[in-house]
Amino acid sequence: MTELPTDSGVNALLTACRNVSTDPDERARASIDRSGYVPGGIPDGIVYAESVDDVVETLRLASLYRVPIVPRGAGTGLAGGSAATAGNVVLDVSRLNRIISIDPVEQQAVVQPGVLNAEVNAATAEYGLFYAPDPASTAICSIGGNVATNAGGMWCAKYGVTRESVLSLQVVLADGQILKTGRNTIKGVSGYDLNALIIGSEGTLGVVVEATLRLRPKPLHTATVAAYFANPAAAAQAASAIIAARIQPAILEFIDGGTLAAVDAMMGTDHSSRGNAFLLAQTDGYGALLEQQVLIEAITPFALSIEQTDDDGRAAELVAARRNAIPALQLLGRVSIGDIGVPRKRLADAVQGLAEITARTGVKIFVIAHAADGNLHPMVVVGHNESITEGPAKVALGEMFHLAQRLGGTLTGEHGIGLLKRDWLEEEVGSLSLELQKKIKAVFDPLGILNPGKGI
Amino acid sequence: MTELPTDSGVNALLTACRNVSTDPDERARASIDRSGYVPGGIPDGIVYAESVDDVVETLRLASLYRVPIVPRGAGTGLAGGSAATAGNVVLDVSRLNRIISIDPVEQQAVVQPGVLNAEVNAATAEYGLFYAPDPASTAICSIGGNVATNAGGMWCAKYGVTRESVLSLQVVLADGQILKTGRNTIKGVSGYDLNALIIGSEGTLGVVVEATLRLRPKPLHTATVAAYFANPAAAAQAASAIIAARIQPAILEFIDGGTLAAVDAMMGTDHSSRGNAFLLAQTDGYGALLEQQVLIEAITPFALSIEQTDDDGRAAELVAARRNAIPALQLLGRVSIGDIGVPRKRLADAVQGLAEITARTGVKIFVIAHAADGNLHPMVVVGHNESITEGPAKVALGEMFHLAQRLGGTLTGEHGIGLLKRDWLEEEVGSLSLELQKKIKAVFDPLGILNPGKGI
Repeated sequence: MTELPTDSGVNALLTACRNVSTDPDERARASIDRSGYVPGGIPDGIVYAESVDDVVETLRLASLYRVPIVPRGAGTGLAGGSAATAGNVVLDVSRLNRIISIDPVEQQAVVQPGVLNAEVNAATAEYGLFYAPDPASTAICSIGGNVATNAGGMWCAKYGVTRESVLSLQVVLADGQILKTGRNTIKGVSGYDLNALIIGSEGTLGVVVEATLRLRPKPLHTATVAAYFANPAAAAQAASAIIAARIQPAILEFIDGGTLAAVDAMMGTDHSSRGNAFLLAQTDGYGALLEQQVLIEAITPFALSIEQTDDDGRAAELVAARRNAIPALQLLGRVSIGDIGVPRKRLADAVQGLAEITARTGVKIFVIAHAADGNLHPMVVVGHNESITEGPAKVALGEMFHLAQRLGGTLTGEHGIGLLKRDWLEEEVGSLSLELQKKIKAVFDPLGILNPGKGI
Repeated sequence: MTELPTDSGVNALLTACRNVSTDPDERARASIDRSGYVPGGIPDGIVYAESVDDVVETLRLASLYRVPIVPRGAGTGLAGGSAATAGNVVLDVSRLNRIISIDPVEQQAVVQPGVLNAEVNAATAEYGLFYAPDPASTAICSIGGNVATNAGGMWCAKYGVTRESVLSLQVVLADGQILKTGRNTIKGVSGYDLNALIIGSEGTLGVVVEATLRLRPKPLHTATVAAYFANPAAAAQAASAIIAARIQPAILEFIDGGTLAAVDAMMGTDHSSRGNAFLLAQTDGYGALLEQQVLIEAITPFALSIEQTDDDGRAAELVAARRNAIPALQLLGRVSIGDIGVPRKRLADAVQGLAEITARTGVKIFVIAHAADGNLHPMVVVGHNESITEGPAKVALGEMFHLAQRLGGTLTGEHGIGLLKRDWLEEEVGSLSLELQKKIKAVFDPLGILNPGKGI
């Protein structure tokens, strides 16, 4: 459906918009996200939106001139969803970064898309409230991107992903019209769930310019357990034992030995000396300590050692091991961050299958995982000058997907399809589903100007 | 888009399908749900599907002959969503009532649409698991209808609505193709969220023939509080105080004095002698008793009396007051069950506004509410021979909607639009949203044969 943009169309758009940059360095920075994917070119320009009107005007002109627009927030995506190349114009919404309001009584916040995830929690903490979706990148990722990818994080096994915490959205459509989705009440079923349709659509259906977030009471009590295991299989068994004990940890994170060593090297910690696999578990709420005891009983048969703490400082240190896992691995080489989901009981099988992929392909794979919801991040690490989108890394990515599929799982638990995983999407969702998705895309964006080639 | 069906088309379909009934009594029963809505006619026939193939074949023929199909489960809808009239053929899926599998380790169940909500919980209880969405009609409503309306219930403030507990679906599309939506993992973001799009679409996008449900660990501990108040305003203030105390009750139900009297008359209980408004609160989990204490402290300033119990039998009696509210009111007259949602902090304003509607219109309105999520069920009660879709009852319904809208709320929290609320949908969601929804409907059902005129 997309006609190729003419240079004159791009130029006309860039001339007509406010706050445009065509600086080559800025364009190069705006061509990539944190996926490691490097497009063949750089975008023709960047529009820095400073108001909803700027977004409206940019998209109106983009429709007029048939210019492919790549929406961009903080640029921390892990699937190439905001990667941009020659012929594209980047619509950067990071300056739309106001927390518009916080309603502590109703437990809601209204924010612009450029607000960072961590900023929401910093601003709501004084009311004893928190915003539950917490990607590892919380300090640097923005709400717009969280919505685009339906971001998850460590707390979402208990508190749900972005979809469960975004009540309503204002979205600028491809033609510049403003759509309101969802509502400001906790429940509501009037009409189709366009709010859920926008969430996770990776900027292909519209550009989010405002989100009403559901906040939750911050648990008064949190209890933290760190357990070390002789091998990943034992840790996976322990994670299954926690699920089987029918408790609901707020956090249940798995880290393998190789990743622990990388974290230790970066942070000066000693995790890897205590075992070759690690589980971090937090229970929270009024029953945190009681639940912690049940959790410890469940994992004791499998663990080398168990540390428990109610001290917030020590708990934060332990959580930091997980939060720093990705940066620590990035010191070792170029990293492609896998994101497969499997049924929770298949965690051990998934870890074993990843080891077999390494054995077959020679590609190094480190593993961290949100064990409570079966979402693994297998980290393919190649040399700093090697490709993560071609060659052995791509072979390993494909094998990972087939592993997930064989175990009854999914290609992507929370990062999105972006550009990196397009090749396997149809195999997962089926041709009928993909065909319907393409038709829905055409309903929202008949000219195909919004983040073309991404997501679906 | 729909061409009028020819009688010969309907006849051809009814002749070609298995398990067809044209019995007038059965057709009359299949023309209504529990909304009180009475269509002008009755459907031409009923196809009782006994297999997925039966559904496929029926829809294939319906597309061929352009026959409007009204999908029907247990017929307990409260908005006319499964009402059927002359020219319609009802596709009854209530015989697709097998629990296909329960996986206690992964905490999932795969069920057919005709399985009753309560049957899921009966079957999963032995594993210590439960299915969280629990409409008051749990004993008689089926999973297919729960999916069609994105049903809620008493537990959903804490555990989420149907959308949060349905992982994947098999859906037969209008042309007979089988679509799989969602996935069997807790998280997953591959492609658009068609699963959420189908959930709550009131049978207008496809017919659900299988659902994979997420089960949750049944809390080991539950603590119940029943509190009585001098008036509804005091009860609403108490509900707000509970939210402000930043605890998360599993159940928080409001019942007004008139409803209490009706329940007492039916059940032989004495609730109405103890106050003119009632809150039922349950906390659950390892911290249930601690949370209960905080809850009691929060409501004490507002209550006439407070009863607390950890006894399951007594708790069930108290919960029964809520579960029997609708049948009790139905003994008083014909009931139109409102379903507005408001921000939780506006509960008292909503109750006050409903009293004003009664004063203005002379229409009796009783109020029960899921107070923890601001979902009120204002019950319009008219004489057994009066209309609930025309005259004063309709005026009251319209005023209710505008009250909800004025308070920042919604027309329907969990029952759906069906036929009863179509007149106000566009005003709530806006013309742009409705236009997009109609285009999405056309993507799934280009001939417009699926539950025409319902929902959107």
